[in-house]
Amino acid sequence: MKFLSFVHNGKASWGTVVGDGVVDLTSAEFPTLKSAIEADALQRLGQGAQQSKPVASLDTLDYLPVIPDPGKIVCVGLNYDDHVKETKRDKTENPTMFLRVAESQTGHNKPILLPPESHELDYEGEIAIIIGKGGRRIAEADAWDHIAGYAPYNDGSIRDWQRHTIQFTAGKNFNETGGFGPWMVTRDEIADGESLSLETRLNGQVMQKSSTDMMIFDIPRQINYISTFTTLKAGDVIVTGTPGGVGAKRNPPVWMKEGDTVEIEVGKVGTLVNTIKAEKA
Amino acid sequence: MKFLSFVHNGKASWGTVVGDGVVDLTSAEFPTLKSAIEADALQRLGQGAQQSKPVASLDTLDYLPVIPDPGKIVCVGLNYDDHVKETKRDKTENPTMFLRVAESQTGHNKPILLPPESHELDYEGEIAIIIGKGGRRIAEADAWDHIAGYAPYNDGSIRDWQRHTIQFTAGKNFNETGGFGPWMVTRDEIADGESLSLETRLNGQVMQKSSTDMMIFDIPRQINYISTFTTLKAGDVIVTGTPGGVGAKRNPPVWMKEGDTVEIEVGKVGTLVNTIKAEKA
Repeated sequence: MKFLSFVHNGKASWGTVVGDGVVDLTSAEFPTLKSAIEADALQRLGQGAQQSKPVASLDTLDYLPVIPDPGKIVCVGLNYDDHVKETKRDKTENPTMFLRVAESQTGHNKPILLPPESHELDYEGEIAIIIGKGGRRIAEADAWDHIAGYAPYNDGSIRDWQRHTIQFTAGKNFNETGGFGPWMVTRDEIADGESLSLETRLNGQVMQKSSTDMMIFDIPRQINYISTFTTLKAGDVIVTGTPGGVGAKRNPPVWMKEGDTVEIEVGKVGTLVNTIKAEKA
Repeated sequence: MKFLSFVHNGKASWGTVVGDGVVDLTSAEFPTLKSAIEADALQRLGQGAQQSKPVASLDTLDYLPVIPDPGKIVCVGLNYDDHVKETKRDKTENPTMFLRVAESQTGHNKPILLPPESHELDYEGEIAIIIGKGGRRIAEADAWDHIAGYAPYNDGSIRDWQRHTIQFTAGKNFNETGGFGPWMVTRDEIADGESLSLETRLNGQVMQKSSTDMMIFDIPRQINYISTFTTLKAGDVIVTGTPGGVGAKRNPPVWMKEGDTVEIEVGKVGTLVNTIKAEKA
């Protein structure tokens, strides 16, 4: 099943995809998708919604990031060989980690903002994991049991700000630069460890093309490593890294500009579409 | 005035210091200190509490981190010359930024946890700013108006995990390694830009001694830089950097071990005390 967050009647809501529409599952008991994941209620609520009338069509929906209010967004850097090579970084024994804040996210069909402080806006097509069952020091063998679902993610980056210092934080956290959507597909629809294709298109042209079996640190290892230092909780998001082909490492570099359309397609999950909009300061 | 968060009758609460006790200000309207900061209600509620009966003594209080639920915790690295030199890093034109997650924090008089995965637990005495009025692209001249108050912070670090890769994230985010307290002192009690002393003591011995006028990037510059990429919101925390003298750069290195007591004293603000406890995996 597919679950997502959106605005309905001016109110932040969440629901499930039925046909080409969305059934609203927002309630006092489950005000957010995160709250329903916490209660392990997705399967029950999603099943119950199959005969309900959609409140909106997927085409015209006002999408929010799949999880608008994650407790944390942990991003894995340098997790595909071809991307490590193009950045001229060293391979490391452990995964490279940085964090995004919730304000840096945006939903499907929403603009990704190009801030006036930079022209170096770059895409990074990735697969996001949404945590279901929380835990600490999760063994790799148990890791899949902690996943609620998967979603496309565009880890949009302001490259000059990312290079201001040795820490990526500033360039990874401009408001509304990270696309997250359109929905999450629940874990039961994809075999654990199944290879998923990952493709980034800019104005229709393929810029990144890989699959999850090309990851240096696979999903169980990521969950194990992250949960060694921090407790993973329901609704936490892990953004699992981007393959080669980013705009910054092309010759000449390719920067996204106003009016561009960027798509991240994850096999069996869906396609995230965002247009670029120049932000007024 | 001083405001703080604590556990009272088994419930997360917040309040203000009156004499040597704490008046509980938790209400349905203001369930958390963050919610009262958002509503700009601290002065009114604090004044109203001056004649009220304390519910607990400061000595025996069950402290929480000053803000247990910040939207974000933005930390400034390498912000004192003597610390930049001891780490053999280059000075940069812009401040170095990393993020902590809420679970990495702990309160005054609570243990800082030494995880079983490492023995390289280090202190970093710092001054934290709690944001009052939110904003984006805040000019340096306006920055002070966005501060609700100040608190001592121990940016506790697991050094080997911090060095796993080029990003500090893992080593800065072990559960309950960052001390934050005992309280925040409101902005009106300290002149804007006034030099505040900063001292770290380990088992009574002075390990770091500096003052806020030794910062490379001062508080207005930090607020300006951070708010350029992200919207600062009420209750967000900025941890402003540590001076020289960290344990990792001593010869031989000094690591905190079970039973140690670490104190961070900030002039005019207060003293944060934590003991080190070995965590069982």
